[in-house]
Amino acid sequence: MSIPKKLKERYTWFKQHSSHEDNTSLAFEIISMDRCGLISEISTKIYNLGSDISFFQSWTEYDGKCHIILQVDDKTKPEEILKSIKEIPEIISIETTSTNKKTWGKRIIIIGGGAQVSSVASGAITEADRHNIRGETISVDTIAVVGENEIASTIDAVRKLHRVGILVLAGSLMGGKITTAVKSLRAEFGIPVIGLNMAGSVTKVCDLVISDPVEAGVMAVMLISNIGKFNLLKVHGHKY
Amino acid sequence: MSIPKKLKERYTWFKQHSSHEDNTSLAFEIISMDRCGLISEISTKIYNLGSDISFFQSWTEYDGKCHIILQVDDKTKPEEILKSIKEIPEIISIETTSTNKKTWGKRIIIIGGGAQVSSVASGAITEADRHNIRGETISVDTIAVVGENEIASTIDAVRKLHRVGILVLAGSLMGGKITTAVKSLRAEFGIPVIGLNMAGSVTKVCDLVISDPVEAGVMAVMLISNIGKFNLLKVHGHKY
Repeated sequence: MSIPKKLKERYTWFKQHSSHEDNTSLAFEIISMDRCGLISEISTKIYNLGSDISFFQSWTEYDGKCHIILQVDDKTKPEEILKSIKEIPEIISIETTSTNKKTWGKRIIIIGGGAQVSSVASGAITEADRHNIRGETISVDTIAVVGENEIASTIDAVRKLHRVGILVLAGSLMGGKITTAVKSLRAEFGIPVIGLNMAGSVTKVCDLVISDPVEAGVMAVMLISNIGKFNLLKVHGHKY
Repeated sequence: MSIPKKLKERYTWFKQHSSHEDNTSLAFEIISMDRCGLISEISTKIYNLGSDISFFQSWTEYDGKCHIILQVDDKTKPEEILKSIKEIPEIISIETTSTNKKTWGKRIIIIGGGAQVSSVASGAITEADRHNIRGETISVDTIAVVGENEIASTIDAVRKLHRVGILVLAGSLMGGKITTAVKSLRAEFGIPVIGLNMAGSVTKVCDLVISDPVEAGVMAVMLISNIGKFNLLKVHGHKY
């Protein structure tokens, strides 16, 4: 099976890129009363200062307050940005903060049935520990889902997460719409996929098939870690 | 130990709130060439249409393209929003999509040493599977971290994630700055914390202390799930 061009490019970049290489960014944490137009006003103020927003996340909490984490690719104007945002009357607090990327690093996503997601996670977390101690930052995020449609739409949604290094499919039977979703995630979004050695057509479109769930989790970490030279492009298409 | 007011309020809201109750929102996925001012322009166009952005996430991918997921609390204007955003010359694609909240639901965060994070995750993932089959959506997100400063700053960063239901501390010894970080997360951000029964001062400030890691993971799911009546406020301060 061939490697989609986009996957090869994205993977090569992701592998080389340590999660700690984030020294050109400046992040801010803002808590504000919510009102229509708040994001527009904040982002326009930053634009007017000439800074480019490289990451932005906002959500409304249970008490109606708006929480914002934003990152600019420009370390030269922390005071100007703080001063300018504070002029908005609804702002409760704004402070500089570490970036989400620095804390949570690269993500491994594990999707499938509970028993197997647990086993893959056990391998991935234990191996991530060994890499994180040596300076990487790898987090392991999981969801247990049942049903072809549900699993397919969860795989589709992986592209809407940032910092995803690799997806592991942990199940006993996956095919149909799931296979279509895996094809699209790999070709259109460049995210590599490991599958357990399971029934169904999905293993035909995975980058790597691994029979043992703990090994699949360990391998997922080794494949995306900046520590060590093991590389997906060397083992692509293999079944272990 | 008393329960902070904010924690009681946020927990009560979170518990009652099913992850699937998201029928008033409309989400869009945008891929665009990146340029300074893009977020300002998109959010201003939505503001000018009178819609309130309730969730916004943007990041730059390896190829320099900007990916945006945004959600408005207004289902009435999908066509107007699509048309208006498409006028921006850099936009490559925009389509309506399901919300991240609907796919990934409520989050359990597990932080600590590899061996124990794995065990807690095993309990949490297996129990989440049982709740997700019955209509909940609970995901389990983990990171293995070593060192007092590193664990404390990771706990501080939990407030910068959205949809967090509960934090589980999985380790053998936690105190000092970690205890301070837990106090702040609970009192200022209302996020409950389960601790394993470990050495150090942290267990004195946790909402619940559980000796068995698998049970701690299972309990974390039961405490935030909308299915079943088990409630943190009933067992608060206990040690099992």
